[in-house]
Amino acid sequence: MRSNSLEVAFDEVAPAETLATVSRIGPRPQPADWASLAMGCDARGRYQVTICDSLLNPGNTALRDALGDRKALLVTTPTVDRLYGAAIRAMLGVKTLVLDVREETKSMQYVEAVCKEALAQGLNRRGLLIGFGGGVCLDVVTVAASLIRRGVGHLRVPTTLIGQIDAGIGLKGAVNFCGKKSFVGCFHPPEQVLIDPLFLRSLPRRSLASGIAEAIKMGIIRDTALFELIEGSSRELTTAGFTGAAGISVLRSSIWAMLEELRKNPYEDQTYERVVDFGHTFSPLLESAMGFDIEHGEAVAIDMALSATIALLLGLIPQSGCERILQVLENASLPIFAPKLTVPLCREGIVEAARHRGGSMNLVVPGGIGWPLFLKNCADVSDSVLEDALASLSSRGAGTA
Amino acid sequence: MRSNSLEVAFDEVAPAETLATVSRIGPRPQPADWASLAMGCDARGRYQVTICDSLLNPGNTALRDALGDRKALLVTTPTVDRLYGAAIRAMLGVKTLVLDVREETKSMQYVEAVCKEALAQGLNRRGLLIGFGGGVCLDVVTVAASLIRRGVGHLRVPTTLIGQIDAGIGLKGAVNFCGKKSFVGCFHPPEQVLIDPLFLRSLPRRSLASGIAEAIKMGIIRDTALFELIEGSSRELTTAGFTGAAGISVLRSSIWAMLEELRKNPYEDQTYERVVDFGHTFSPLLESAMGFDIEHGEAVAIDMALSATIALLLGLIPQSGCERILQVLENASLPIFAPKLTVPLCREGIVEAARHRGGSMNLVVPGGIGWPLFLKNCADVSDSVLEDALASLSSRGAGTA
Repeated sequence: MRSNSLEVAFDEVAPAETLATVSRIGPRPQPADWASLAMGCDARGRYQVTICDSLLNPGNTALRDALGDRKALLVTTPTVDRLYGAAIRAMLGVKTLVLDVREETKSMQYVEAVCKEALAQGLNRRGLLIGFGGGVCLDVVTVAASLIRRGVGHLRVPTTLIGQIDAGIGLKGAVNFCGKKSFVGCFHPPEQVLIDPLFLRSLPRRSLASGIAEAIKMGIIRDTALFELIEGSSRELTTAGFTGAAGISVLRSSIWAMLEELRKNPYEDQTYERVVDFGHTFSPLLESAMGFDIEHGEAVAIDMALSATIALLLGLIPQSGCERILQVLENASLPIFAPKLTVPLCREGIVEAARHRGGSMNLVVPGGIGWPLFLKNCADVSDSVLEDALASLSSRGAGTA
Repeated sequence: MRSNSLEVAFDEVAPAETLATVSRIGPRPQPADWASLAMGCDARGRYQVTICDSLLNPGNTALRDALGDRKALLVTTPTVDRLYGAAIRAMLGVKTLVLDVREETKSMQYVEAVCKEALAQGLNRRGLLIGFGGGVCLDVVTVAASLIRRGVGHLRVPTTLIGQIDAGIGLKGAVNFCGKKSFVGCFHPPEQVLIDPLFLRSLPRRSLASGIAEAIKMGIIRDTALFELIEGSSRELTTAGFTGAAGISVLRSSIWAMLEELRKNPYEDQTYERVVDFGHTFSPLLESAMGFDIEHGEAVAIDMALSATIALLLGLIPQSGCERILQVLENASLPIFAPKLTVPLCREGIVEAARHRGGSMNLVVPGGIGWPLFLKNCADVSDSVLEDALASLSSRGAGTA
């Protein structure tokens, strides 16, 4: 007889019927004396990220094909609705919910507004949300899709550069909660992300630059060729947009790099050492401290400049490497310093990062272009190093947010 | 050269470096001309359901072992806190949030209260929620755990029979939204579910009977032996509780049956034909119509009685089989009819079920004990069949909610 503390791996119970000579139809019998059952519940996930040409051209069937015969709710922003709402409704005949939501106001209130409209429209479990806008809009749609009827599908059509290469192509969605940035959210993969570079044409230069910051991040942490491409074309990119060869190339390489990093750890449960966290340790608090009167990518640029300067002061990167990083940011019209970035704020960022990263600081700093390093312990970065790094960036004068 | 519409299965790109004679260190290079990337993001899931003996006995280490060195927040209900709060705090030294929440009031407001307390307690991503209470409390905890920092772990200690054999052992959590039962929620597996039959001792008889309804359901849809066990002991079960041999046996068989059904379709994305939906087509609307002045299991019992009677009228189950079902419910002090159950309400239940089940009604009716059938189309159940079934149940007199 088996012990009373028997732990049964639920998927691996030898089915009694396989021992019999007559095959048995019906439920698998219960072992007599289990004390614990291990229930396997792996989830299959897969989504497409597709670069499209003129998505809203009436001849382009990508959106219609993605929707199929399902009922959908389009969620967008006032600007996007004004520019493209009529075209997408003409194409899909869907109801639209326009959310006037910004980084600092994204909250469960907007998520619930989407849920409410989905309920009003009678979306069933096969129903679909279409998020059509920037990263903030897509964040709200992703969280709402994860909650409605315990999860419905969603499509994403990012209309900003940061949405197309970063915020819109991963699995994550989050909103702020009780003053805490992105405290509640989910991992909820979209069905498809449709990337149309034409949308970038209507973006203001500052928004483009903000997106370029994330592309520069990818270059620094893993793609020297991408970094050099941006070094050679950043002024052109912020003025001419992303429909030229250099722009398309930056777009494609950034998406490739992001998905390559994501696929190693899509649910962030494999490791807390994530190179894509580069530029994302001090920036969340800076965004809060500035009352979100700064673009996300601008805060990331400042964080990268600070991280590179910390690496320089710690002797981890040569002067020339650090200089290239500061230069490429400045050439893209990105800031490298903000007066609100103080030693106490940086210290708080480090503590919060350690909390979010399972107890280790894991500050990503460049050891060179394409060569990321992790600083594991909060004590590795002393207050005097922070002070010197901030003073050095402040004294460069140019590029202050 | 490859076509411009090349779709790259992201996981399956032949890495260029395997073709070279010198092994290459560094990022996998991007294929030159991809147009679409398929991103794989399977999620591993696994949790334990364990039957424990005297969980709150100071010598029992199950809870301490499950918690480890992590920070945790205990979420419970006023009654459970009064009976067991001190013992669990003495054992674990955790902060407690007491939620006075009922089936009809479970909402995002309570989920947000849990998120807020988790933020106040500084829970990091390794932090843990411990849901300690009935199905409603566990629902709220599960949804909160899925949202906090995009998902933290949670333990469940169900204290009601329905929690121990049904609501507490699956992956699902949900709350009501804008008057719609369980409209928002998640699939978020717990780390562990700890089942201690001792908690059932303090339950009122009506609550026990409500749980027995779910056990009866499992007997009817897949386990003749379980059904017969309840047939022979239902009066004893509702009076003596679940610490005797019959009670433990019902508990174990019900859990086994539930997990066996769940593992085929843990995210309900494989099929909309779910035998565990038996008893859950008319009952949600009945609960709403009665202002939740009915136990969930009582509504399920009425739904099962109606479904069995429909099967009888359609000639799908013999009179004797239907009679056994009605009898076992009545012997367990469960209702089989409620005046609020009208033809229009049933019709609405059918329409809503079809919406939730991807377009097909999939009404589960018994063809016999242990033999479930699916009625696919709404038209299979005419208003006159509903009318006759309701009249037949009403005229039995006994067992009206």
